[in-house]
Amino acid sequence: MKKRARDATRPKAVVLLSGGLDSTTCLAVALRDGFEPHALSVDYGQRHKEELRRARRLADALGASDHKVVKVDLSAFGGSALTDARLRVPKGRREKEMAKEIPITYVPARNTVLLALALAHAETIGAKDVFVGVNAIDYSGYPDCRPEFIRAFERLAGLATKAGVEGAKLRIHTPLQKLGKADIVRLGTSLGVPYKLTLSCYDPARGKACGRCDACTLRRHGFEAAGVPDPTVYVSTRS
Amino acid sequence: MKKRARDATRPKAVVLLSGGLDSTTCLAVALRDGFEPHALSVDYGQRHKEELRRARRLADALGASDHKVVKVDLSAFGGSALTDARLRVPKGRREKEMAKEIPITYVPARNTVLLALALAHAETIGAKDVFVGVNAIDYSGYPDCRPEFIRAFERLAGLATKAGVEGAKLRIHTPLQKLGKADIVRLGTSLGVPYKLTLSCYDPARGKACGRCDACTLRRHGFEAAGVPDPTVYVSTRS
Repeated sequence: MKKRARDATRPKAVVLLSGGLDSTTCLAVALRDGFEPHALSVDYGQRHKEELRRARRLADALGASDHKVVKVDLSAFGGSALTDARLRVPKGRREKEMAKEIPITYVPARNTVLLALALAHAETIGAKDVFVGVNAIDYSGYPDCRPEFIRAFERLAGLATKAGVEGAKLRIHTPLQKLGKADIVRLGTSLGVPYKLTLSCYDPARGKACGRCDACTLRRHGFEAAGVPDPTVYVSTRS
Repeated sequence: MKKRARDATRPKAVVLLSGGLDSTTCLAVALRDGFEPHALSVDYGQRHKEELRRARRLADALGASDHKVVKVDLSAFGGSALTDARLRVPKGRREKEMAKEIPITYVPARNTVLLALALAHAETIGAKDVFVGVNAIDYSGYPDCRPEFIRAFERLAGLATKAGVEGAKLRIHTPLQKLGKADIVRLGTSLGVPYKLTLSCYDPARGKACGRCDACTLRRHGFEAAGVPDPTVYVSTRS
């Protein structure tokens, strides 16, 4: 990506960027709020690498100061359809069904691992702010997206680092925390997020979204409810 | 390693095993306390892979049920002499000097990352116990070895996982917490730990300990103070 001159007036922030709709909106919010964003993508053994390619393009397009990819092989553990090729990604479910239980696409302790890596990066570059795109919809199914989890992590971070020992506080920003998908789409659209470049799909093929997994269903409904044309490129028109 | 039959009477525990003196003693304690240990080594981009080889041998020799290695490339961030080849591992320092500051061998947010990965493994295999070999000596220099850090992580774990949401508590065992190096050597010796196989050195050469880094110095003094013959194979006799 393009090298950008360091702007010392803006505080550094680490932004967890998957290349999906939520995290990309989160990056746009960090920029709006005057931070110098250092994007961090975690390659945790996802079945597909397409989202990492998208993350790199988006970090560049939006104007992040830096983009790092850190590999951690969570597929060594298995237990999730997102990291274990033997488990099937559910398709064609309705939103009601999704809300009932913690989904098979849940990656064990994923956000704990992602935030731990963001903390390591923040400590290394001297950032005291981390942005993560957890939001209201995630709370229904994922325990590690809830506000009390985020607050517990902030507390841990204060005890875990050199900077914390020296009195600095790490703040974890979750600007999408109370937003549904349509609100997120509206927010990102107002900030000029190029949603066409983002990829939310759990099971893309040839770089295109499947249109039928839970992530695709939620995303499509989000654009519909926001009244924003859906720029997503799907494998087929729909099914 | 040898496959062992599952003993359903013993609760599963994840044991973080680096192959060093502390974590290996910790594994022996988990066995003594009636757990079925699942050893987990984290390859975090250490300069040397020798300790991972030792960890595998030790997991097998002591009777762990399983040994997994998970890779996470913390060297992407730099900032530590243990992951950044451009930084020099300090040699020939006295214990007093070590206690003065957080050392260059500190890996940013290391224990947060290690415990996050242990939590992911624990959640996947259904373990509610994690063992980690942090100890009294570490507290002087490493913020993420202190008891309040460990308690904060336990609290986080309860909020981070499916099991936590369902009411299970994750317990992080730190049996070496109040022990100095000599106490650890005495404890491990009483439990039959084959210390000859362990490697604590920050900068080994041809599989042998350098004898001069902080880790070698602390370890050697530990054997001396415990009155236990030091079985470590050093590069040279001493310097």
